[in-house]
Amino acid sequence: MALSQKVRRFVDEGGWIRRMFEAGIALKRQHGEDRVFDLSLGNPVVEPPSQFHRELLRLAEHPVKGMHRYMPNAGYPETREAVAASLRDETGIPFAAGHVVMTCGAAAALNVVLKTILDPGAEVAVFAPYFVEYGYYVDNHGGVPVVVPCGRDFQPDLEALERSINGRTRAVIINSPNNPSGAVYGEPLLKDLGELLTTKGRQHGTEIFLISDEPYRRILYDGLVYPQVFPRYDASIAVTSHAKDLALPGERIGHVAVNPGYPGAEELVDGLTFCNRILGFVNAPALMQHAIRRIQGASVDVADYQRKRDYLCGRLTAMGYSVFKPQGAFYLFPQAPGGDDVAFVDELQDHNVLVVPGRGFGAPGYFRISYCVEDRVLEGAMDGFARAARRFGL
Amino acid sequence: MALSQKVRRFVDEGGWIRRMFEAGIALKRQHGEDRVFDLSLGNPVVEPPSQFHRELLRLAEHPVKGMHRYMPNAGYPETREAVAASLRDETGIPFAAGHVVMTCGAAAALNVVLKTILDPGAEVAVFAPYFVEYGYYVDNHGGVPVVVPCGRDFQPDLEALERSINGRTRAVIINSPNNPSGAVYGEPLLKDLGELLTTKGRQHGTEIFLISDEPYRRILYDGLVYPQVFPRYDASIAVTSHAKDLALPGERIGHVAVNPGYPGAEELVDGLTFCNRILGFVNAPALMQHAIRRIQGASVDVADYQRKRDYLCGRLTAMGYSVFKPQGAFYLFPQAPGGDDVAFVDELQDHNVLVVPGRGFGAPGYFRISYCVEDRVLEGAMDGFARAARRFGL
Repeated sequence: MALSQKVRRFVDEGGWIRRMFEAGIALKRQHGEDRVFDLSLGNPVVEPPSQFHRELLRLAEHPVKGMHRYMPNAGYPETREAVAASLRDETGIPFAAGHVVMTCGAAAALNVVLKTILDPGAEVAVFAPYFVEYGYYVDNHGGVPVVVPCGRDFQPDLEALERSINGRTRAVIINSPNNPSGAVYGEPLLKDLGELLTTKGRQHGTEIFLISDEPYRRILYDGLVYPQVFPRYDASIAVTSHAKDLALPGERIGHVAVNPGYPGAEELVDGLTFCNRILGFVNAPALMQHAIRRIQGASVDVADYQRKRDYLCGRLTAMGYSVFKPQGAFYLFPQAPGGDDVAFVDELQDHNVLVVPGRGFGAPGYFRISYCVEDRVLEGAMDGFARAARRFGL
Repeated sequence: MALSQKVRRFVDEGGWIRRMFEAGIALKRQHGEDRVFDLSLGNPVVEPPSQFHRELLRLAEHPVKGMHRYMPNAGYPETREAVAASLRDETGIPFAAGHVVMTCGAAAALNVVLKTILDPGAEVAVFAPYFVEYGYYVDNHGGVPVVVPCGRDFQPDLEALERSINGRTRAVIINSPNNPSGAVYGEPLLKDLGELLTTKGRQHGTEIFLISDEPYRRILYDGLVYPQVFPRYDASIAVTSHAKDLALPGERIGHVAVNPGYPGAEELVDGLTFCNRILGFVNAPALMQHAIRRIQGASVDVADYQRKRDYLCGRLTAMGYSVFKPQGAFYLFPQAPGGDDVAFVDELQDHNVLVVPGRGFGAPGYFRISYCVEDRVLEGAMDGFARAARRFGL
């Protein structure tokens, strides 16, 4: 046996996104790249903004001695300060470099946070639908994921959360704008969530961290301003990356930010820095830390994503699909006509359209469309959506 | 409590390298940067070879659409093939792209390998002196590190290894050229090791992996050719990075290579790719994968390291130190005069010379000198070494 028993089982179960990826390869081989409409992956086709290209060129043209060496495990002080400055601007909270740890993307950041805070058997609540990797991340570090449902418009069901919290609850992960639903959690929800965690922590004599996974925080529609967790709860930690806002998913650059209002912030950052090292990340890639320092405000063209969202919602609604209109991110999570998400996704596949069944996100009965694709792919998929809708009686 | 109990304990215990790092900061503040001779870190002061700068400039000047996007979790097929081609050249073994997984450096690679193969309580043998992080990496994934001594000239003691192997033994980690000793394990040793693991695996009905950690494999002296593990044992896995040979430690780029002769190679690579994803590495940084593709043979100037080694060995031997002459890497691991490594390291610190006590590598009674520094730092440290030697009666 080459693999551990657990990894063997995980690999066998596969994941829906991976299965769609493989189905996509087979379909493209059979029908040709242009005849398959792949809406299954969150891999933006947009290019990084011009500021990023300029920074990279500057660094390559004028290499500075030592720029590829190790730096402290938490990252370059100047980069941490640039992130802190941006957080100060956004939140009005006095972030300093010491509250920020640079990481190899948000996936790394989540693993570092969970490694740092989880004792064996600690429970971590996530709201369904949720990014399927959370379950692995929690398990990696000896924790137990606890899935809590969302209510209307994919907003967290706080009563269900309250019932699920016990003395072993160590953290709650939220993800807003949400993958896969596109929901954004508003100020009132965050306020209620913060109060609930404070009350339950007191009741159980525990500390419950609120981990806010925010890779889509700059992809917001209709003029929405991002509702921050920091003012709403002291023991809060934000993780993010530049995968989406700077369209750099392959470069693995992100950070953890610890709420300056959390009394144990210094101890926590020490632990995060240590775990960043011992998990083998060591530090976020040096060149990317240099490249993003001066372009903290830069972003891809969000208006273009909003245009795609409007097109997609409009077309699908007209076909009879039941659709929640996303407030951010670049996913749509409609109800699967007929109720069986796998059957419906199979039907779409017969029309060369690839999407991911909702059960891949802990939410059977829905399916996820990723619209960070070229217009011709979105447009090309419409015929398949229309035929599948008719087939399922819409 | 911000941290888990285990992480709290780990952070409190600190690590010797970290302690020296902090002592260094304090000393430099007190005496000035130029009056402190820091030989405690493996952070090469040499710059990457010119080929790397040319590749980076080419990529920055002519950005290709999609070059910063996600790629398959195992890396770009072209980069994996370039690494495989280099391995074919070096070993004569038919490596293909499918035997290679690109990783965020060797530390990531080791964590990915251990996550993939370790069941709870599995034992992993390491030879002392050893890179202190191995213990954390094994523990991260539920394994138990088992420390086995080296014999003469810091060569693994295979009889001691034989005694330590049991039915729970899942892997042996070797590191040649070795950090901290500079020893290189020769063909006869690797042959004997391979035979031993074959015999013991058969005896216990288990599969024992040989994990070869090779970040220093291109830093070899006196015309030595690197002795490869692949021809000596089928269930062998090499992990490495470009931290040392291309002087890119901050960029986190390396790979895992699985022996094509291992019957479970395909299954293992599937598991490694999966674990690369779920541990949060996701993929090795995209830009670095592009940058190293065409410069697989490139390396920093090894002659310069050899010159530093000769200078250091010559001077310390003349002072009466007992020194094993390194065959590779850029560390020297002399006996601590008086036998107490911590006392001797403290004495050196009084002369503004920073080194790491051997107990930080599981080998009390020695100390590690890192000579990947500028000549002026090495030369400046000599007075301190001479005074400390006299103080300890050499």
